[in-house]
Amino acid sequence: MKKIAAIGAGNIGKAAARAIELSPDMELCGFIRRELKPVKGFEKFPSVKSVFDLPEKPDGAIICLPSVLMEEAEKELLESGIYTVDAFDIHSELFAMRKRLAESAKKGKVSCIVGAGWDPGLDSVIRMLMTAALPKGIMFTDFGPGMSMGHSAAVRMKGGIENAFSYTLPLGYGEHFRKIYAVLKPGEDKKEVEHRILSDKYFEHERCSIDFLDSIDDFFTTGHSAKITRFGEMGGKLSFSLSGDNPTITGQILASSMRAAFIQKPGAYFMTEIPPVDFCIGSLEKIL
Amino acid sequence: MKKIAAIGAGNIGKAAARAIELSPDMELCGFIRRELKPVKGFEKFPSVKSVFDLPEKPDGAIICLPSVLMEEAEKELLESGIYTVDAFDIHSELFAMRKRLAESAKKGKVSCIVGAGWDPGLDSVIRMLMTAALPKGIMFTDFGPGMSMGHSAAVRMKGGIENAFSYTLPLGYGEHFRKIYAVLKPGEDKKEVEHRILSDKYFEHERCSIDFLDSIDDFFTTGHSAKITRFGEMGGKLSFSLSGDNPTITGQILASSMRAAFIQKPGAYFMTEIPPVDFCIGSLEKIL
Repeated sequence: MKKIAAIGAGNIGKAAARAIELSPDMELCGFIRRELKPVKGFEKFPSVKSVFDLPEKPDGAIICLPSVLMEEAEKELLESGIYTVDAFDIHSELFAMRKRLAESAKKGKVSCIVGAGWDPGLDSVIRMLMTAALPKGIMFTDFGPGMSMGHSAAVRMKGGIENAFSYTLPLGYGEHFRKIYAVLKPGEDKKEVEHRILSDKYFEHERCSIDFLDSIDDFFTTGHSAKITRFGEMGGKLSFSLSGDNPTITGQILASSMRAAFIQKPGAYFMTEIPPVDFCIGSLEKIL
Repeated sequence: MKKIAAIGAGNIGKAAARAIELSPDMELCGFIRRELKPVKGFEKFPSVKSVFDLPEKPDGAIICLPSVLMEEAEKELLESGIYTVDAFDIHSELFAMRKRLAESAKKGKVSCIVGAGWDPGLDSVIRMLMTAALPKGIMFTDFGPGMSMGHSAAVRMKGGIENAFSYTLPLGYGEHFRKIYAVLKPGEDKKEVEHRILSDKYFEHERCSIDFLDSIDDFFTTGHSAKITRFGEMGGKLSFSLSGDNPTITGQILASSMRAAFIQKPGAYFMTEIPPVDFCIGSLEKIL
């Protein structure tokens, strides 16, 4: 039974912890977080500032911090001989991140899976398999309807905003519309804030609209959907769709990736580089 | 550029050959078949009785023979240092086949992928990935509407039959109905033939019906469909669907598996044991 720590106790950290608890081959050994109070729903588990403060050194750790804070934490864990999986989601930095983490992993003689989850992660795996089955053709990825954590955070950071959620709405065939719901801070100018948001790099090349409202609490949901469709030779068509609770599915993919990390050679990997059977419990013969 | 031979020139052999021709990193070098006449649509390629009769020794071979004839042919190729992929489809013998082929592959210092195609093959990969994303839940696989080559052959082998096709019709949630279209040989008793078919191990535990007709030529189609659905935690739902020309898709999966075989360590593998990126052309950075 592998002992796993959750690094971070936000939506994803808690969902990953729950997924570990559901796994017969892994057990949760605690949370690493800034606040030392127990994590809601996980009161019986230790909640400490460093992995080295846990009663026992964990075998693995799932990194559920904001992407910009992941690398430092993950390197330290890997170099201490702890296997890791992270939900790093800055697409443009994935390769550089993997390269640096591979060095730490080899130092600690362990392995890590970088950018695990739905996107990046499973969606790239599905696209590759679709391309293997229909090598010539066209492919579309539709995201949503669902709230984008990254885009919502980007809106909130533009200033003048109490709270904001950015929903991704699929128009079909890879085209999207973003609908932003925001609450202005008192005295802020609506036009000015709107300009700041729409000129941000997250939105400047996107179709989007902003609704300023008195309250957006009822707009907070964690449901999400996605669909990948590929059209190929001789009328061939492949389609993959996903819907459900975003943190729950992400947490489950992270836990399955944790299982896979333990059986890779020292190094850093993307999900696309992992044999699918490695994500599953038990022998291949039993699984099939 | 890897040189690939197609072993067999039936529907699947020709479709695999076409897929190799479409691949920028592989080239077709000929067919191995009993008859020495050129293969229709591939007249410019040699058609010979043994791989050793080709102008040049191929790097790889795709085995598209009836399953029961595959092993002997594949072992010889592997032991001669030729990488192979086969479309072996007898589920109950997959593990034993893989074990025996692994020995031949190691002898020849090459590798092979066993049971490549849609089922067995890609469908197991998709099920594993779905299980990784939704570890607790229920899953259904629906096949069809489409003709089952295996079931059609089983009907034809029962005697008293001129020709027959068995269609797999999905009732949903993993339940199926088989509709058999058959032409009786002159003087055969309909009731007796029907009894022989329905008591065959392919059909005895199945919902099915038989239509005896004067001609079934118009019932020959190679289109097929399949759908895998998984329902998991917190309303999570995953769905994968495939439709198109059965030999074309199978041939394309075989060609992509051929590419993957070249970069595995000596041994025999199922598709579920291959990193998804290995099926694709070019570097991971370019693909992603």
